Amino acid sequence: MPYFDAASAVPLHPVARQALQASLDEGWADPARLHREGRRARLLLDAAREAAAEAVGCRPDELVFTTSGTRAVHTGMAGALAGRRRAGQHLIVSSVEHSCVLHAAERHEADGGTVTRVGVDRGGAVDAGEFADGLRADTALACLQSANHEVGTVQPVAEVAEACRSAGVPLLVDAAQSLAWGPVDGAWSLLAASAHKWGGPAGIGLLAVRKGVRFSPPGPSDERESGRAPGFENIPAAVAAAASLRAVRAEAAAEAARLRELTGRIRARVPELLTDVEVVGDPERRLPGIVTFSCLYVDGEALLHELDRAGFSVSSGSSCTSSTLMPSHVLKAMGVLSEGNVRVSLPAGTAAEDVEAFLDALPRVVSSVRAQLGAPAADEERGRGPAAGGELVVDTLGRRCPIPVIELAKVIGDVPVGGVVRVLSDDEAARLDVPAWCEMRGQRYLGEEPEPRGGVAYLVRRER
Amino acid sequence: MPYFDAASAVPLHPVARQALQASLDEGWADPARLHREGRRARLLLDAAREAAAEAVGCRPDELVFTTSGTRAVHTGMAGALAGRRRAGQHLIVSSVEHSCVLHAAERHEADGGTVTRVGVDRGGAVDAGEFADGLRADTALACLQSANHEVGTVQPVAEVAEACRSAGVPLLVDAAQSLAWGPVDGAWSLLAASAHKWGGPAGIGLLAVRKGVRFSPPGPSDERESGRAPGFENIPAAVAAAASLRAVRAEAAAEAARLRELTGRIRARVPELLTDVEVVGDPERRLPGIVTFSCLYVDGEALLHELDRAGFSVSSGSSCTSSTLMPSHVLKAMGVLSEGNVRVSLPAGTAAEDVEAFLDALPRVVSSVRAQLGAPAADEERGRGPAAGGELVVDTLGRRCPIPVIELAKVIGDVPVGGVVRVLSDDEAARLDVPAWCEMRGQRYLGEEPEPRGGVAYLVRRER
Repeated sequence: MPYFDAASAVPLHPVARQALQASLDEGWADPARLHREGRRARLLLDAAREAAAEAVGCRPDELVFTTSGTRAVHTGMAGALAGRRRAGQHLIVSSVEHSCVLHAAERHEADGGTVTRVGVDRGGAVDAGEFADGLRADTALACLQSANHEVGTVQPVAEVAEACRSAGVPLLVDAAQSLAWGPVDGAWSLLAASAHKWGGPAGIGLLAVRKGVRFSPPGPSDERESGRAPGFENIPAAVAAAASLRAVRAEAAAEAARLRELTGRIRARVPELLTDVEVVGDPERRLPGIVTFSCLYVDGEALLHELDRAGFSVSSGSSCTSSTLMPSHVLKAMGVLSEGNVRVSLPAGTAAEDVEAFLDALPRVVSSVRAQLGAPAADEERGRGPAAGGELVVDTLGRRCPIPVIELAKVIGDVPVGGVVRVLSDDEAARLDVPAWCEMRGQRYLGEEPEPRGGVAYLVRRER
Repeated sequence: MPYFDAASAVPLHPVARQALQASLDEGWADPARLHREGRRARLLLDAAREAAAEAVGCRPDELVFTTSGTRAVHTGMAGALAGRRRAGQHLIVSSVEHSCVLHAAERHEADGGTVTRVGVDRGGAVDAGEFADGLRADTALACLQSANHEVGTVQPVAEVAEACRSAGVPLLVDAAQSLAWGPVDGAWSLLAASAHKWGGPAGIGLLAVRKGVRFSPPGPSDERESGRAPGFENIPAAVAAAASLRAVRAEAAAEAARLRELTGRIRARVPELLTDVEVVGDPERRLPGIVTFSCLYVDGEALLHELDRAGFSVSSGSSCTSSTLMPSHVLKAMGVLSEGNVRVSLPAGTAAEDVEAFLDALPRVVSSVRAQLGAPAADEERGRGPAAGGELVVDTLGRRCPIPVIELAKVIGDVPVGGVVRVLSDDEAARLDVPAWCEMRGQRYLGEEPEPRGGVAYLVRRER
């Protein structure tokens, strides 16, 4: 059963499993102790640190093992912000960072700091010049992911790092999605990553802090891991993380080329196989294994469910698949459609046949979901002739994505060219999806107005 | 080779290993995802939570998995203190808590809070009445360990919990050392524990927060584990922790009785086998597996090293075995000797023969360390007749534990009864060990004075 959600987590790499097994026997003791079990554990931990540091491209004493990538980011951001408090309290991040970065930024604001969130283009990429323009005299820290976790777009880290270096601002790079493929280029100051993204075990992350970066660890003091990761060290996980990172790196070049070809095939074929679909993310500067697309008139949760029944495990940035019922902040920042969103992220070793089987199943699955929702057929959407008057109101209050867009599409032909449809909706996804639909359909999005009955009116002018 | 440092960590329990292996295959995916791998992971996590909650004695929705016992304590304390900020900022802890509690208390002080540290008796136990007297109108949180990690003394948690309940103050119990033996009695509000203490894997701890306790998690927000433990869940470790906790509990009663007999044997025999030794910790209200003693005129690091060479792994609270060169805060709070300190903590399944072998080796090892240090023989210590004048200065500046006490013992007989020895020392351990020596020897400790050349003069009056 093909698992295409590698950007969330991948199964344990065989090398990680072997290393874990071996170090369960040798690495369970407290490495701070003087007895032989403690010394043995310490040796394993030191060796894991050296191997991980080599793969990251830093000195062993610059790297600590954390309990997750999220902890690495939280500690890295809090430590650098506190260490640079004299410089100021301004933080700059991209608007498409992982939620752990954005949550830490919100926390920083709640604690009195200021935050600039740099936008991205429709492909999901930060502009290095625009990012650099955000640097201020009181900027304490900048954060930029090496590549985006939802759409695979690679960010201009080396250029941003250079701008940060010139400004004397440390740059923290969240390398969670890219570290398996190679070290992060450029003069970064802090780097965070998570082992379960490359086939290491859960419960282990990396935080590298370059010598010379002012750093003041948050929280109560603790002697372990240079004071940067409190609590008993998880040595078997550290050993397995380091060993599997080396193992995936050994095959990274060949596997990257192979997966890039497979995701390229999906990028090319999806628009041929499906109507009303948008492949999102930068077509060139992208990770090898991730491809993301959004389908009009499709409920993301129903789509995931049908794909799961067909044997394919993927994820989605659609609001209906989120516990908060908010569409993905990444898709929102890019200004692309969030409804019917599918992220395919291929684990290393994915067979070409599995990708073909997915492409084979996809049209059937999408049609079935669209049929269940009563999505408009292409000719139906073209309209049943203009309605009387120049404006038409579509009330979808209380109904969720993708219903507002489906109802809009059904009636757009009922107003004359130049006429306006008011879509009333209280679903947050509509704020993103109505404009995205207009962009895809060549209609004009006029903006939103508060709706007296609650929710919002989204105004669309028929252009053709 | 007998490993007697179970209070630091124990090897993985066979049940934990099996559970870990099985859940590496089934529990690697993201439990927040909708696909089958995610749902399978979620089921495992839910089952682990139920099993752990049953063993703790709380509801599953009151328990989260953390990445260590230290994290459980840090999060529990910070969350309860923040949640009760309106009540006040006073924190009360015992002076013999694990360093993670005391470090969190220091952090709370640095952040503007106030802390009361309740002392202990010479056996290491808090007095419940004294603890209750420390509760104030502005007390936000109280913390008390279920049992001490260095000397094994069991604390009066149920009585303290009752006093806290009456005062409307939540009590956090650090149950790291006792949870393997049974649930914590009494009306506690929060409970923290660590799996590697009972044979679970590293990288996993428990935090229980009773319903109704005001709690505001520290740090950036995160959806996982009810917002109380950010970062990707370590499901294999959670499953292994829960399974091994059930397994050790099934044998806890029988094994506790067996280990208690073995540690009782050590408690009784050590004073017969060694001269100048003090067994510390409460002789009755104590954990089954821990026994601790201190030996005069012995360097703790040398003693650990010699025991290690003889095949026995133990730990020590002596200053020379600590990275900070400070004696154990627990021994200090108890007012007992810290030099030549040995903590024997027996893992479940320890063979009686191994304990006998330890008792057999101990006198030889201690004698050897004492001989290396030039410790005074019993008759030598009794003195070579009074020195001229009533006071004698012993300069041990620049020399470390146990040298100050050894030099004191060598000269005490050189002053007349009623005469005074001034011991000059700049080793922090002397502050604890000179008074402890006086207590053991029936001499009078008069106090300390600053020494103009640096360090401190400790004054001892010869009484006999």
